[in-house]
Amino acid sequence: MVFHSLNEEDKATLGAMVSTDRFSTGSSNLDLHSRDMSRHRPRRPEAVIWPVDRKEVSHILKFAFEKNIPVTPWGAGTSLEGNPIPVEGGIVLNFNRMNRLLRLNKDDFQADLEPGMVYKELNRQLRHTGLFFPPDPGADATIGGMIANNASGTRTVRYGSTRNFIKRLVLVMANGEILEIGNRASKSSSGYDLINLFVGSEGTLGVVVEATVRLVGIPAEIACALATFKDPSSAAGAVFELMRSGIDPAALELLSTECIELINREKGLGLEELPTLFIELHGPTSSQLAGFMEIARELCQGEGCLGFRPGVERGERDRLFEARYALGETITQAHPGHRRITIDVAVPISAYPEMIGFAREAAAGVKEAVFYTFGHAGDGNIHLVFSAPARAEKVWDEIEEVNGKVVARALELGGTATGEHGVGIGKARFMPAEHGASLELMKQMKGLLDPKGILNPGKIFP
Amino acid sequence: MVFHSLNEEDKATLGAMVSTDRFSTGSSNLDLHSRDMSRHRPRRPEAVIWPVDRKEVSHILKFAFEKNIPVTPWGAGTSLEGNPIPVEGGIVLNFNRMNRLLRLNKDDFQADLEPGMVYKELNRQLRHTGLFFPPDPGADATIGGMIANNASGTRTVRYGSTRNFIKRLVLVMANGEILEIGNRASKSSSGYDLINLFVGSEGTLGVVVEATVRLVGIPAEIACALATFKDPSSAAGAVFELMRSGIDPAALELLSTECIELINREKGLGLEELPTLFIELHGPTSSQLAGFMEIARELCQGEGCLGFRPGVERGERDRLFEARYALGETITQAHPGHRRITIDVAVPISAYPEMIGFAREAAAGVKEAVFYTFGHAGDGNIHLVFSAPARAEKVWDEIEEVNGKVVARALELGGTATGEHGVGIGKARFMPAEHGASLELMKQMKGLLDPKGILNPGKIFP
Repeated sequence: MVFHSLNEEDKATLGAMVSTDRFSTGSSNLDLHSRDMSRHRPRRPEAVIWPVDRKEVSHILKFAFEKNIPVTPWGAGTSLEGNPIPVEGGIVLNFNRMNRLLRLNKDDFQADLEPGMVYKELNRQLRHTGLFFPPDPGADATIGGMIANNASGTRTVRYGSTRNFIKRLVLVMANGEILEIGNRASKSSSGYDLINLFVGSEGTLGVVVEATVRLVGIPAEIACALATFKDPSSAAGAVFELMRSGIDPAALELLSTECIELINREKGLGLEELPTLFIELHGPTSSQLAGFMEIARELCQGEGCLGFRPGVERGERDRLFEARYALGETITQAHPGHRRITIDVAVPISAYPEMIGFAREAAAGVKEAVFYTFGHAGDGNIHLVFSAPARAEKVWDEIEEVNGKVVARALELGGTATGEHGVGIGKARFMPAEHGASLELMKQMKGLLDPKGILNPGKIFP
Repeated sequence: MVFHSLNEEDKATLGAMVSTDRFSTGSSNLDLHSRDMSRHRPRRPEAVIWPVDRKEVSHILKFAFEKNIPVTPWGAGTSLEGNPIPVEGGIVLNFNRMNRLLRLNKDDFQADLEPGMVYKELNRQLRHTGLFFPPDPGADATIGGMIANNASGTRTVRYGSTRNFIKRLVLVMANGEILEIGNRASKSSSGYDLINLFVGSEGTLGVVVEATVRLVGIPAEIACALATFKDPSSAAGAVFELMRSGIDPAALELLSTECIELINREKGLGLEELPTLFIELHGPTSSQLAGFMEIARELCQGEGCLGFRPGVERGERDRLFEARYALGETITQAHPGHRRITIDVAVPISAYPEMIGFAREAAAGVKEAVFYTFGHAGDGNIHLVFSAPARAEKVWDEIEEVNGKVVARALELGGTATGEHGVGIGKARFMPAEHGASLELMKQMKGLLDPKGILNPGKIFP
């Protein structure tokens, strides 16, 4: 695919489609939209546009489609696999001016949102309604970015990933056409499901300009415990038992010793420096949760738990989860001059202990890098983070080899190359192994919906 | 699309692909596969084949694709919109010989199934494991049929529809290619979601030959109550309040007076003959459920409930739900010589009282038909059933007019033309109104996956 580079006339035309303060070709803006939070090579777009409504988006795409100009939608730029890096240049559409809660329908537990809304801001605005939007990827992720990536987080183990919360989408297609899909009923058997095709498509099939999301009642009671283990495998064994038990955890996070040491040092948390599970339960009454926590204690002790501390109060709980959300960034800050990679695989829960063991053993073979393992354990999701000097090419080659081994093992175990970070640039090479012949079908879908390949080119497909 | 009719040579070729006892062109078999449980005009296939494995299905489809022969997959034939009627003749693939539980993975709460397995048989085989498969459309629905229709049922309000339980599919595509999609991890952000494209596609995009489904722990405690109201609108008002309350019902069924009268008469249930809610709660402890039931009582009383009877014991509960599942059939049996239509719309829960009122008022205008309203109220799903003499053309014209009005109102309210019965033949005419421009996209998907249109032709698209 040969794309068209923006000339002065194109820039004038695009600039005239929006107000002048919402079109930029300035270096600092181009730099800001050249990289996400991953290790992937930055690439500047040729222009950044901040649309304010679907009509502007439609006009821009119609023009780009005619001229063969790449268009990459941009949320908060907090992706971890290079998902929004405009590798072919062209236009970045930054949605942070389309960030409103358009309509709250409390009675139906639904909200209509613009894609640039940050999910934390949504939950802040909802806080007096008794409702919340559960997917919590951390950082300042926007709803549009979360839809693009099918984002998930600590509470996904109970509530589901972003996919499970999208009722209706308004999209601008590659040619500028505006399309509305889905409905507001709680279920439907009407025609092909298009919603799920767009959720997780990383902006490569269409651009979301409005979403109706499902909301959930804030739980009446929350309980939190910390459990420590002698080694990560015992902790992973406890995860398996907890998931089988029916206590339905609302969060079940595993942090290895090196993660606990790091957050003790950087955040002053004073935790015992051992492999640790954060266990959160949601429920209607504190007595039910106390009973469930007792079950959790017994199961953890059955796996050789060294310490089990229930009754973690709200203040400490908030600090723990903040530290967990910030862990990636904390690792980066702790290693100046380093680059970081997060290997994000997920496996069936019965294979979790094996996967953790395999990942740590493979990682230990890279002598000149430091590594951390943590993850949304209840989902069978592991994050293996390496940090190594940015220019140590040989070390990075070894890390990439471990990346390949870990993904291959996850696939053998029935899992997936990416539990939540998406494919972007970094995971594209694993797509043939994961999807086999169905990758061809995905390519055909891409060809059908974006025949000129202008939407976020260079992603997902190797 | 002009299809090829089977000649003697084709029949010999197809017969030789399977054993002779699994290929039939006999009248009684063709008749048995000419109709589902709907009012739609029967149409015989030209041959029925009972495959036993994916290879046979692949060979048959390869042949049919080359020759332009329609192929319609067949589960139990219990659909209500003509979904599996072979309107263009050709081959029906009956999956009742592919009905095995292939692999139970208790530790991951998953099972690999053949598509002809009846979901009740699955649950019977699971009964000592502590696990179950929640979607419960009633009748003898097969897993394959449930996937094709995104079937749901009484417990969908809590657990979700079939869509929410499919992890992985093996499909035979129109050209005979075998395709495996999805994985066994609890979540993934890897590539386009293809699973949800096939779920609910009514056998028009590919033929499911194996499915990995998610299972759920059987609840420790179940509580059931009956609440009666002076009119259906008050009952619908209570449904709305119950759904807002956070007690998370596992079933919330509304039956109008005429339904209660009918099941009293036919099943001898001895219920009070008033609009009635069946309320079922699932939870970890009986004390929690008792507390929730007390909330339910107060909310129902706030809506003018005339009687609230908690503590319905297991035996009675089973009889109630059996009667509910069998309601469609009971209506048919109660009116010999009549045809029946089930109008199946779903709306956002806040619109449920209005929708119930609208549907009943519209129905009352058809003087020479009897009608019944009931439905999975917690999902905002209404079934309006008409029964009228089979040959009373004028009455059926009036009924079809009401069908159109009810669907139009549901769409205006943000709902859907079909909550769970699928589009089939009967709902195809409403697809342009419901989906607008996105119907064209669905057609393009169909063209991509089934370029010759041989898979279950004549369905979904008007």
